[in-house]
Amino acid sequence: MSHDHDPHEFSLAPALENRWSPRAFSRTEVLDSTVLGSAFEAARWAPSSGNSQPWSFVVGFRGDETFGKIVASLASGNQVWAEHAAALVANVAAVVDAEGNPQSHAIYDLGQAVAHFTIQATTDGLMVHQMGGFDAQMLGKELMLSSSQRVVTVMAVGSAGNPADLPEKLQEREARPRTRKPLSDIVEGSARYA
Amino acid sequence: MSHDHDPHEFSLAPALENRWSPRAFSRTEVLDSTVLGSAFEAARWAPSSGNSQPWSFVVGFRGDETFGKIVASLASGNQVWAEHAAALVANVAAVVDAEGNPQSHAIYDLGQAVAHFTIQATTDGLMVHQMGGFDAQMLGKELMLSSSQRVVTVMAVGSAGNPADLPEKLQEREARPRTRKPLSDIVEGSARYA
Repeated sequence: MSHDHDPHEFSLAPALENRWSPRAFSRTEVLDSTVLGSAFEAARWAPSSGNSQPWSFVVGFRGDETFGKIVASLASGNQVWAEHAAALVANVAAVVDAEGNPQSHAIYDLGQAVAHFTIQATTDGLMVHQMGGFDAQMLGKELMLSSSQRVVTVMAVGSAGNPADLPEKLQEREARPRTRKPLSDIVEGSARYA
Repeated sequence: MSHDHDPHEFSLAPALENRWSPRAFSRTEVLDSTVLGSAFEAARWAPSSGNSQPWSFVVGFRGDETFGKIVASLASGNQVWAEHAAALVANVAAVVDAEGNPQSHAIYDLGQAVAHFTIQATTDGLMVHQMGGFDAQMLGKELMLSSSQRVVTVMAVGSAGNPADLPEKLQEREARPRTRKPLSDIVEGSARYA
């Protein structure tokens, strides 16, 4: 396990500093609703456009039916590691509101709710890895979502595992330092950063 | 000032528990790049699809040119309180990548980066209020963004102010308790909440 990254000038809250997206999750850990309660509570209190709260979450725990449906929808490169995590969650946006109007901010708002989930889960000693590589149409059907709902991302949740359990190629990737564009590339206007 | 809300069963990290979106910001406070450094650093380290980091931020401080451009783009209902905040930030997504392909996750990823910004800012004693009510096309033009970029939200940033400075109608709103759908409405699958 490694979460090495570039040194940076400004200090971060521990949950933000320590968050990263592993592939090696504990293969024996058992999670339940209670352990994930605070993380879902954090998602619940995220801000959204007009307080529309256009998000929902379909949770599977390793071995149950929902978990199996999510695993089956994953791209093979994700399946190989994610199928061992203690929990898999489908992150769902209500892209159309009750009156049939598109909710243009639903996907943005879902991103915020998942970020809040992740930061609370990290605070609670769990790790989260989000994925875009899955068959959203198939999964929406399997989970019996309505036509107004879309699975935007899937996330694996659990405690850190042993990187040696991963296929060799992913072991190397697991140890790779995290990188980002410099602050000066992403902030413009009156704020200036090195 | 009030951030009353429903009691909830599961405890949250302080920055998530205390976060809310005020309209009364300090009208005299002066912020600069250094004070916002950790919040932008938090946004920088957010996760994104394939580590594409499809976000950028255009910052204005009260009285400067960028600030004026953002204020001018706001819906009047937002202008009346947001023009007094110490900083206004345009949150920008790169909706098309360098090869001209749509980046379907850009808006979701920006939502996460703004959530990370907000949680770090809250940790640092600041408050953040995001807005969707503004002229995105006009603002993009004024800020000379490229055609691949879109301002998705604008946010006011600063310390708490005096609600008595707000128009009467907004004073009432400022004191209203925060509410959300119950956890049981937003979590499905194998997890069960009351």
